[in-house]
Amino acid sequence: MDFNGSHILSIDQFDRSDIETLFSVAEKLEPYSLRKKVTRVLEGAILGNMFFEPSTRTRISFGAAFNLLGGAVRETTEIGSSSLVKGESLRDTAQVLSGYSDIVVMRHFEDGSVEDFSKASRVPVINGGDGSNEHPTQALLDLYTIEKELKINKKTIDGLRIALVGDLKFGRAVHSLSKVLSLYSNVTINLISPEELKLPPSYLSQLKKSGVVVNESENLEEGITGVDIVYMTRIQEERFKNKSDAIKYKGLLSLNKEIYTENCEPNTVIMHPLPRDSRQEANEIDSDLMENPNLAIFRQADNGVVIRMALFALVLGVVDKIEDTSRDISWHTSKRH
Amino acid sequence: MDFNGSHILSIDQFDRSDIETLFSVAEKLEPYSLRKKVTRVLEGAILGNMFFEPSTRTRISFGAAFNLLGGAVRETTEIGSSSLVKGESLRDTAQVLSGYSDIVVMRHFEDGSVEDFSKASRVPVINGGDGSNEHPTQALLDLYTIEKELKINKKTIDGLRIALVGDLKFGRAVHSLSKVLSLYSNVTINLISPEELKLPPSYLSQLKKSGVVVNESENLEEGITGVDIVYMTRIQEERFKNKSDAIKYKGLLSLNKEIYTENCEPNTVIMHPLPRDSRQEANEIDSDLMENPNLAIFRQADNGVVIRMALFALVLGVVDKIEDTSRDISWHTSKRH
Amino acid sequence: MDFNGSHILSIDQFDRSDIETLFSVAEKLEPYSLRKKVTRVLEGAILGNMFFEPSTRTRISFGAAFNLLGGAVRETTEIGSSSLVKGESLRDTAQVLSGYSDIVVMRHFEDGSVEDFSKASRVPVINGGDGSNEHPTQALLDLYTIEKELKINKKTIDGLRIALVGDLKFGRAVHSLSKVLSLYSNVTINLISPEELKLPPSYLSQLKKSGVVVNESENLEEGITGVDIVYMTRIQEERFKNKSDAIKYKGLLSLNKEIYTENCEPNTVIMHPLPRDSRQEANEIDSDLMENPNLAIFRQADNGVVIRMALFALVLGVVDKIEDTSRDISWHTSKRH
Repeated sequence: MDFNGSHILSIDQFDRSDIETLFSVAEKLEPYSLRKKVTRVLEGAILGNMFFEPSTRTRISFGAAFNLLGGAVRETTEIGSSSLVKGESLRDTAQVLSGYSDIVVMRHFEDGSVEDFSKASRVPVINGGDGSNEHPTQALLDLYTIEKELKINKKTIDGLRIALVGDLKFGRAVHSLSKVLSLYSNVTINLISPEELKLPPSYLSQLKKSGVVVNESENLEEGITGVDIVYMTRIQEERFKNKSDAIKYKGLLSLNKEIYTENCEPNTVIMHPLPRDSRQEANEIDSDLMENPNLAIFRQADNGVVIRMALFALVLGVVDKIEDTSRDISWHTSKRH
Repeated sequence: MDFNGSHILSIDQFDRSDIETLFSVAEKLEPYSLRKKVTRVLEGAILGNMFFEPSTRTRISFGAAFNLLGGAVRETTEIGSSSLVKGESLRDTAQVLSGYSDIVVMRHFEDGSVEDFSKASRVPVINGGDGSNEHPTQALLDLYTIEKELKINKKTIDGLRIALVGDLKFGRAVHSLSKVLSLYSNVTINLISPEELKLPPSYLSQLKKSGVVVNESENLEEGITGVDIVYMTRIQEERFKNKSDAIKYKGLLSLNKEIYTENCEPNTVIMHPLPRDSRQEANEIDSDLMENPNLAIFRQADNGVVIRMALFALVLGVVDKIEDTSRDISWHTSKRH
Repeated sequence: MDFNGSHILSIDQFDRSDIETLFSVAEKLEPYSLRKKVTRVLEGAILGNMFFEPSTRTRISFGAAFNLLGGAVRETTEIGSSSLVKGESLRDTAQVLSGYSDIVVMRHFEDGSVEDFSKASRVPVINGGDGSNEHPTQALLDLYTIEKELKINKKTIDGLRIALVGDLKFGRAVHSLSKVLSLYSNVTINLISPEELKLPPSYLSQLKKSGVVVNESENLEEGITGVDIVYMTRIQEERFKNKSDAIKYKGLLSLNKEIYTENCEPNTVIMHPLPRDSRQEANEIDSDLMENPNLAIFRQADNGVVIRMALFALVLGVVDKIEDTSRDISWHTSKRH
């Protein structure tokens, strides 16, 4: 893929070399996301951060990423946009809004809406999540986290053994992650979920077709044995037709210190796309794991910023210019990390 | 008018020489709005973008314009402002908020509220629309678009023949545009609307008094024959006491390729203040006109940014300093326009 | 207190020398808040301005303060945060959001929530108001205003005579101010309120313990006689269990020109934390006092910006670097103040 000026709409756009390109730029940008250095490479550029569905953390992660490159952010969180109510087409909205910025991030509650928007947009559009369809930056930050965490133990994604746990039916993060993992060789995925929340057949067959070894199970202890990564998820209550149906699955698959210690290897990494449900009845990852150094869930969220910075830099074609305006940071940052 | 430090509250403040001044600054600023160059002339300045009525596009257009001059934007979209609920006067709000910024843009649902606010404000205030009263930057960007589009065919606003079509009773954009057109000589305006949605008498008599030739009609084909500009509008459903009354006017005046081709000149420009209602029952401008190069509706929206930049630069007195911090853009912009 | 990297959660953290430090930095920053000079000392830094309770003016005051130091602002005003609805703990939210910024300002409707958040935050957190608990920057800006206004008449806070008037039971600003005044010597406080809205006993006993002379009264004329400062407040209607109870206290304690002239000294300063209720039935400060040069209520609001700038500069450790990026302002500012 030529990132320059491209829309980033789906994880399907990425092949292995695209991912390698992205990750190498992300690595280069870490001193900036870690607040060791400042760059102003996008000073004067504007991000249109268009959130037609609420998502505080994704919105702020994209906005912060753009600010860290020196750019300005204009945004909306107005859901019942008055213009749409007045009969405006999404393409008209795209034509107009794309005139106000150099790049657009869009989140929308409707499947396919971001792609539709991108067709009329005069600037590159990054998909920040469209309904239950795509959320490509989540998959990319998950994969980047996996690679970084494995590297500590001198492992690679080729050869990865990972357990995906929880609501595999409705979990958009898990769907995209399974897609992108199929680009790697010698991968084993343990799918652990209640019978009713299994990974949909289309994703399953894609995995098998691409040579991934897949094991399905309802048993957490069995499924997490011998894996490099345990990827926990939340029961996606809001996607159930009957909310009361969701309740019976909550708490069925909870990871705590005892289960982890008895079944995992010493360096097994724990991930979660967040937010995690910490209420007693769900408690996907128990608080007794908070001090475990393999709990990577907040590093994962941090990686979202640097992955989004890398995407902006690639799509706007400024990777080679980042150093030009680079300088050391001048304020107090000792509390960070 | 001396723009320096002035409030911009009404289109009535502008005479022809003011408009010429504004448009010449706008032209000078086009390389910046078109992302060919960057200026940081307002770096350190703050715009208070106060929207007490939702309007995503106008809000972002003003904010982007300020960012493009290098300034920062603080804004609110909180409508039921808690302070007003607690009995605070608009003048107190103005005193306080004007202490937080160098210039304020304000939109409010109540007629006259922005002028009231400006009386207590300690910084210049630009009216971003107050109820059905004024929205001066819309009229200015419309006029700027007319001038630019005519210039391509070596025509000027003096001598203009324009058709204003649709809801001329409630359409605020049309009211302000008619006012400002009366500053020019040898103008002919064809007013095309259902009988019940005619231009209010006060605007009509002002037009006639200033020498504009006015023709009223209910017939679209007749009205658009021989004009330089067709200015379409939306039925302002939300301003009707009875919404069901609005429905019967929808779709009465729709422009499509066939009607355009049979009645217009080859270079007749199509404008619309947007949003346009693209639903089947209204369809003010048919999608079969989307590829027509004379469809200027998105250029019109783009012109909003540069007109607002020009206003900011004039009111804050930095026109002569724009070049001082000017530099070429360093990111990828090939997709634009 | 070592400001460097600290959370600012409560007014109790401040002793006299901390306040002196803060005020001397604020004074140094006045040329910047008054738009005489620009500094870019925090260029590249990000403030996470997290408002989980609406408060337009406090939010914009903090945001503007950060912009005036050259930093960028990402913010939320989304109250029913979807993540909290999904069962996320405030500590998880803190972990994630603190990864997106260099410093966080947080306002929340629940007492103690900001402190809880700060425990998991990886960057310094400033309390922007948590329920009826704390709002430290309000007390600091009030005290700074008192010092500045007294200085004009060559008086100091040591020896201050002040009247606190109105709803002393629910008024958070008054509670914090009374705490911080107890750090000074030879202070006299006249507490003027209806019997049912008296200052809670805990605050009263703290004042007496620290040597403050306290006089309680229901009579405005009596209470404001001989004081340096009259600090008016609003009946906090929203905190009454029965809103109808609040109504009977409105208008009981209203200051107007006649009462002021007959009872106050020529230089007695009038303050109010704002918003003030200007409706006929409440009218805490009559409009006939608007031209009185001792009415300091808007200077007080302005001081909020410079106090917040000073806090940011101290907590992020950049006080000594402000001048490095300092330059004269280049835009028109004649209307200000």
